[in-house]
Amino acid sequence: MSSYMETLGSRAKAASREAVTLSAEERNKGLLFVSEELCHEMDAILLENQKDIHAAEENGMKSSLLDRLLLTEQRITDMAAGLQQIAALEDPVGEVLSMKNRPNGLRIGKRRVPIGVVGIIYESRPNVTADAFGLCFKTGNAVILRGGSDAINSNKAIVHAVKEGLRKAKLPQDLILLVEDTDRETVYEMMKLHDYIDVLIPRGGAGLISSVVQNSTVPVIETGTGNCHIYVDEWADLNMAVDIIENAKTQRTGVCNACESLVIHERAARQVIPMIVNRLKLHQVIIRGDERACAYSEEVLPAQEEDWGTEYLDAIISIKVVDSLEAAVSHINKYNTGHSEAIITENYRNALRFQDEVDAAAVYVNASTRFTDGFEFGFGAEIGISTQKLHARGPMGLEALTTYKYIIFGDGQIRK
Amino acid sequence: MSSYMETLGSRAKAASREAVTLSAEERNKGLLFVSEELCHEMDAILLENQKDIHAAEENGMKSSLLDRLLLTEQRITDMAAGLQQIAALEDPVGEVLSMKNRPNGLRIGKRRVPIGVVGIIYESRPNVTADAFGLCFKTGNAVILRGGSDAINSNKAIVHAVKEGLRKAKLPQDLILLVEDTDRETVYEMMKLHDYIDVLIPRGGAGLISSVVQNSTVPVIETGTGNCHIYVDEWADLNMAVDIIENAKTQRTGVCNACESLVIHERAARQVIPMIVNRLKLHQVIIRGDERACAYSEEVLPAQEEDWGTEYLDAIISIKVVDSLEAAVSHINKYNTGHSEAIITENYRNALRFQDEVDAAAVYVNASTRFTDGFEFGFGAEIGISTQKLHARGPMGLEALTTYKYIIFGDGQIRK
Repeated sequence: MSSYMETLGSRAKAASREAVTLSAEERNKGLLFVSEELCHEMDAILLENQKDIHAAEENGMKSSLLDRLLLTEQRITDMAAGLQQIAALEDPVGEVLSMKNRPNGLRIGKRRVPIGVVGIIYESRPNVTADAFGLCFKTGNAVILRGGSDAINSNKAIVHAVKEGLRKAKLPQDLILLVEDTDRETVYEMMKLHDYIDVLIPRGGAGLISSVVQNSTVPVIETGTGNCHIYVDEWADLNMAVDIIENAKTQRTGVCNACESLVIHERAARQVIPMIVNRLKLHQVIIRGDERACAYSEEVLPAQEEDWGTEYLDAIISIKVVDSLEAAVSHINKYNTGHSEAIITENYRNALRFQDEVDAAAVYVNASTRFTDGFEFGFGAEIGISTQKLHARGPMGLEALTTYKYIIFGDGQIRK
Repeated sequence: MSSYMETLGSRAKAASREAVTLSAEERNKGLLFVSEELCHEMDAILLENQKDIHAAEENGMKSSLLDRLLLTEQRITDMAAGLQQIAALEDPVGEVLSMKNRPNGLRIGKRRVPIGVVGIIYESRPNVTADAFGLCFKTGNAVILRGGSDAINSNKAIVHAVKEGLRKAKLPQDLILLVEDTDRETVYEMMKLHDYIDVLIPRGGAGLISSVVQNSTVPVIETGTGNCHIYVDEWADLNMAVDIIENAKTQRTGVCNACESLVIHERAARQVIPMIVNRLKLHQVIIRGDERACAYSEEVLPAQEEDWGTEYLDAIISIKVVDSLEAAVSHINKYNTGHSEAIITENYRNALRFQDEVDAAAVYVNASTRFTDGFEFGFGAEIGISTQKLHARGPMGLEALTTYKYIIFGDGQIRK
């Protein structure tokens, strides 16, 4: 382990000890100072971002990635506004979740507290830098950020502004630490810093997330992979089904809560598949189906086994025809990634069974999977969408960045 | 990966899918059938246990470990009674933790559900086999058990009885699976089964737990390491301090919530250290202190740096003298393991500051650390004591074996 990463870890831990003594008022004030400083340092940030953009262009980065890397005056203003919105959210820290008196007179309370040190590993989206800091700082945590090397100049400039804002608010500047050494080795070292980092949240593509899960000794919250299905039941309102499928597939294709696969009851298939094909054609969606699906429309191309497990993130969708609700649930539980699944049905019993038996973070009846999102769920913020089952599942708001401690008030109790 | 472990994983996953369809009534009935079957197969279990005992004696196992391995008629009756007690506990599964209507008419509920497949890796305590099954089954999970190789015959016999009980109750027998191949390699394979196992809980010594944390790609809940401190504040009731220290150090020495280290304010030290020494002498406790502690009593031996970080699990305690509450908190936060910490004080402000600033699962004012326990906390059960911050912290009752899913009721909503 290089002393560089150890030092970052130990500085973050020390800062997190100071953070627990800050009141919500102080933390919110800090967010407003940082927000102001981002606008104040706008020119410097734009200049540094241009360095990253030029280098990326020279390296032949494709335009969709270049767009994610690019900062504009508007985007920096949005970042700053985002921090103000976070400041305005209710403070989850300190809430006493329960308090009980035990027969021996001990009063045992369960209090929500910051996690401590949060590590975020992400790709070349400089807006994540300010956003992740805001959410971690709001909840009293220190954050260690390791962004993509393509965005290093932008990230340094943003972190400079954040630290400057913290300094002006008289708050510990080590509450944000950027891994400036973007050598690949430092990411692996970060994953082993379990003495200092309490949780690691990878944000990015499936490859990044899988690498963190494979290598980290720090507890990880997996986020974002979504092979989401919509099941059209034999009792579905078919027009509603088509509207929801169109929305879930085409409103945005590159996002984790987009629908990637349809499961259709045999009794609805003959009628609904041509309707779906016609609607999706309007959006140039490529449709791949099993043998039965192909039989109902010439525009459905034959699917391969690997289609069922693929998160396309593109204008492609697969169709599987099944004979029963059980078969639908079993197909979905086999291929899904634990993100968002929907049934379209007017049948009470089938709606409840689907919700009971499908194993996913969010299970919908008669609504688009696109709603799985911290803002749509009313959390006012989102640090990611967890597809695992421990600690946090589904959209993660501020509460996901907290843990709890038991606080026990005694008057001399000893154990018999 | 051997097909043996893959097969176990996939069988457990399939059984866990069936388990979500069981009602609390069916699960409780299953526990009663299994309880009865354990008594029914008592002779067979005792016979198999004797094989393990003989082998262990031949291998020279020390007597404290032999005692943990030994089953008696009484211990099997206790196991069976334990399952009946678990059956009588309130069912946490299915509780709707919140339900909100969104402006667009979506109703979003958060429902407590089983985690899925729980893996338990433990040492040669055959009682854990029935106990861990009981807690996992109560909460609708499948469990894969990997016990110590010294207990393999006992574990096979217990698992046989459990499966037979499940069969008689017409419930899926794969809800309990024992790793019968106790080759070391199978433990490492189990730690990589993240496609099938949702959480891994190691129960045992620090070496076992650290090996699981280092090697597992399955999310782990760390349990049980407790380097617990008691801080005697300058405003402490010294008689209460001595009573609590005696209890926390000597009531049982080999447990994780026993006190291992004292931190004493300089202004209390001259008076309280001799009192503590006299009381702990009654229990033959060895006391090691820093220079100042040694100065207050000839019976305090000089401590080495490694004493501060050591969980003795024995009749040994260390003493550090400090000049302030801050110094006490900082010493504790440096050396503790996030388990249980106590302050003895009559000072309101110091009591609250200690609870705020000490980073541990359970922070006590004026009570023994020995209370950190699922039963003492009123949970009615305990699967372990978590010393990490994600998902569950401190004593883990039934709720720690559940996660949640979002259930969303719509009537055709699409995202704008």
